[in-house]
Amino acid sequence: MPFIDLNSDVGESFGNWTMGDDAAIFASVSSANVACGFHAGDPSTIRQTCKDAAAAGVTIGAHVGYRDLAGFGRRFVDCSASELADDVLYQLGALHALARSAGSEIKYVKPHGALYNTIVHHEVHAQAVVDAIKAFGEDLPVLLLPGSVALAKAEKAGLRGVAEAFADRNYTPDGTLVSRREANAVLHDPAAVTANMIRLATEGTLVAVDGSIIAMPADSICLHGDTAGAVAMAAAVRAGLESAGVSIKSFA
Amino acid sequence: MPFIDLNSDVGESFGNWTMGDDAAIFASVSSANVACGFHAGDPSTIRQTCKDAAAAGVTIGAHVGYRDLAGFGRRFVDCSASELADDVLYQLGALHALARSAGSEIKYVKPHGALYNTIVHHEVHAQAVVDAIKAFGEDLPVLLLPGSVALAKAEKAGLRGVAEAFADRNYTPDGTLVSRREANAVLHDPAAVTANMIRLATEGTLVAVDGSIIAMPADSICLHGDTAGAVAMAAAVRAGLESAGVSIKSFA
Amino acid sequence: MPFIDLNSDVGESFGNWTMGDDAAIFASVSSANVACGFHAGDPSTIRQTCKDAAAAGVTIGAHVGYRDLAGFGRRFVDCSASELADDVLYQLGALHALARSAGSEIKYVKPHGALYNTIVHHEVHAQAVVDAIKAFGEDLPVLLLPGSVALAKAEKAGLRGVAEAFADRNYTPDGTLVSRREANAVLHDPAAVTANMIRLATEGTLVAVDGSIIAMPADSICLHGDTAGAVAMAAAVRAGLESAGVSIKSFA
Amino acid sequence: MPFIDLNSDVGESFGNWTMGDDAAIFASVSSANVACGFHAGDPSTIRQTCKDAAAAGVTIGAHVGYRDLAGFGRRFVDCSASELADDVLYQLGALHALARSAGSEIKYVKPHGALYNTIVHHEVHAQAVVDAIKAFGEDLPVLLLPGSVALAKAEKAGLRGVAEAFADRNYTPDGTLVSRREANAVLHDPAAVTANMIRLATEGTLVAVDGSIIAMPADSICLHGDTAGAVAMAAAVRAGLESAGVSIKSFA
Repeated sequence: MPFIDLNSDVGESFGNWTMGDDAAIFASVSSANVACGFHAGDPSTIRQTCKDAAAAGVTIGAHVGYRDLAGFGRRFVDCSASELADDVLYQLGALHALARSAGSEIKYVKPHGALYNTIVHHEVHAQAVVDAIKAFGEDLPVLLLPGSVALAKAEKAGLRGVAEAFADRNYTPDGTLVSRREANAVLHDPAAVTANMIRLATEGTLVAVDGSIIAMPADSICLHGDTAGAVAMAAAVRAGLESAGVSIKSFA
Repeated sequence: MPFIDLNSDVGESFGNWTMGDDAAIFASVSSANVACGFHAGDPSTIRQTCKDAAAAGVTIGAHVGYRDLAGFGRRFVDCSASELADDVLYQLGALHALARSAGSEIKYVKPHGALYNTIVHHEVHAQAVVDAIKAFGEDLPVLLLPGSVALAKAEKAGLRGVAEAFADRNYTPDGTLVSRREANAVLHDPAAVTANMIRLATEGTLVAVDGSIIAMPADSICLHGDTAGAVAMAAAVRAGLESAGVSIKSFA
Repeated sequence: MPFIDLNSDVGESFGNWTMGDDAAIFASVSSANVACGFHAGDPSTIRQTCKDAAAAGVTIGAHVGYRDLAGFGRRFVDCSASELADDVLYQLGALHALARSAGSEIKYVKPHGALYNTIVHHEVHAQAVVDAIKAFGEDLPVLLLPGSVALAKAEKAGLRGVAEAFADRNYTPDGTLVSRREANAVLHDPAAVTANMIRLATEGTLVAVDGSIIAMPADSICLHGDTAGAVAMAAAVRAGLESAGVSIKSFA
Repeated sequence: MPFIDLNSDVGESFGNWTMGDDAAIFASVSSANVACGFHAGDPSTIRQTCKDAAAAGVTIGAHVGYRDLAGFGRRFVDCSASELADDVLYQLGALHALARSAGSEIKYVKPHGALYNTIVHHEVHAQAVVDAIKAFGEDLPVLLLPGSVALAKAEKAGLRGVAEAFADRNYTPDGTLVSRREANAVLHDPAAVTANMIRLATEGTLVAVDGSIIAMPADSICLHGDTAGAVAMAAAVRAGLESAGVSIKSFA
């Protein structure tokens, strides 16, 4: 029976500000990327999110980011390798304590926002993230873009690199994401997205922007939960996968 | 052979700002209260401090505080019980990961600054700190003011409460600290301080401000390291204790 | 023709987090309390808010608060008088520059959240806020709770203190707010609230929780905009006042 | 009589952390680059610094930087043009209010750290800084690296761009700074530095790293004050310039 992981970002509220519909997302995903306080997520939000994830049977991952609340971790910060490694390790430890207090634990790491995008190619920051995970001592799997520098460095360091695909993004024929500068970067039709993700989960391929079928060896699918439409899309993708006989479960 | 613990605050630099002479302090103390990032201590400072503490054979404690970098944790923040507990738990986890990466671990907790002073009497915040330590799961000892509400709550919760005395502070005949508003609140003579601390370590008493001898059942002595004079005082106290046959070792 | 000011909090988004429906609120109020970055409001949010206020013909006030993003300025911070005065002055200057760039300017000050509540009775913090406004040099009016220590200190310093009433709060017969701990602290019926506010604007009285008519010499009415219900309430109050022949205009 | 401006960074303490010997620096310079709270400088530090500058007769400039306390503004932050412009405008306004309360005012702008270095070549961030200064409305002069993109953009926008030289840095024969990666990037001999700065002030030239004489049309000399050696160097340069008949005064 084929299976796949569904992951989404959660715990991104901060103090009096809320973001996303985490409760709805927990009904759709098997893995929750929980913010760790540097781009979003105050300690109380994180702890409650961990409790909710545990109650929903959803696996917890550490969504580590640059120290940038004002930019929500979406801005590259040109920190040194050691600053970045130490910042990531700090976040891992903080989330770990909150997850444990909720009866759960961190099972993987997913870099957030600008950090995720940067370490697709940035050798120094990619290595720093890998070093932090190694220093944490649990050899956690790390969720990354297929073909990224960080994925290669993680595997070289003995970590499990898990490639993910983005449900609502168009891909070029060579397997990279269509740039967000293009009008057709983002997919909005739940039926088409669901069909494509069933193909991914059952055959390891997907339909690219030009209609060609390309290989996409991803073990996880990233869903978004920051808009009402995204939440509905996430629910549709999960329902579609299950109807097609695909089991949804964490890669960890 | 009598023994006592000597503790001091370290790791209180932040980014480009430095504070204290941690290297000198590590030569004098058995326990290091390491800042956790909320009142001071960025992740790189904390990690290096943990490495230095481990290299010096000094026990690491978590110096948790209110979220207040601008006020260095010296200002009461009227947060809720759950906010405080979650903030403390977050700090414990973060420090724990950095200490482990340095080959060490957290062995105790000491609240910092305004939090330390507040939970001498503030029932809700005292309980929140205790709850956070319990939630962390290691039942760490907690270093507190003798007679404080927090000490009673810690012991009631099954934690070891460790009372401390302040080497460079004058005490009233009833065992409380002479207020800093008084001219004679702080002691400056290393010889007199050392003699008093030898008395404390060997007899469990000290000379109060009026010359009377009072009981002070403390298992640790707090030394300061934020000025050159304080560092010299710390060294003098340690040397004096050792000369008097008192062994310096962690209570943990 | 009777007139009254309607004020509401705006500009309380921060980075990627949004709060309130400022556009809707601008249609209902004459005065906008704009966050200044210490409890909410990043510079880009503030600047856009000032542009929108200017476009809507709404007067801009500085909504100054304690330095506490994580607590949204709703937690008392026990800072010193000079720290508070300097923090307030910093916020006034920052907002002033952003308001001027939008073709407008600050016309009044309203303390936010815990600061507002604290200076109802806290002599030192009340004086610090007054000192900051004096130091800013424009002798701006300051919007405060009737009978508060801050109002008395503002007037003693030669500032115009403007008393406000809260549209959706119940009052005791002696003119103080029914505590939020009571079930009937908050009013939810737009018709009743509107009728009471017409009474306030035309007669200077309102109906207290026990049905008695009490004097309430307020020159401004505070409306909320943080929920859909609050926005609808604000619109209802404005429409009701205008239908009753009350002109809505800034006190400044 | 020849004259030149001497500038240095001040007001870079933050809360309980101190940095630099501002009092000593005020005795040596004519212009003070005052931190504005985003890379360093809490409101109380800033206000006191402005008072001290005013008392010393030193001109105040706004030392604006990226929002990055943990990195002291020394790390590039890939913010958008509008985020940067609004952040700079916010800082200008905040400093302006504090300077005015000290009986002084902002007379120029100098970008700090990574922002200074970035806008040597980064078109978008350079324009954002210029836009913020224009939006502030005073058309303040801006202190920049000779030949920088920002200098050209400032002048194109009608602002006065003021070029500065670095007293303690070696220059290549083509007028650029010897990279800090090179062993001889920084000059340590006060006599040699002073002689070179006298040449700069009187002839508009300086001796480059290879001994050649190059043109350096700078109207200000940047001195450092963050170490005891730097403070002594600053005093030596000032004394040397005055002995050589060069008047020290602000360019503003």
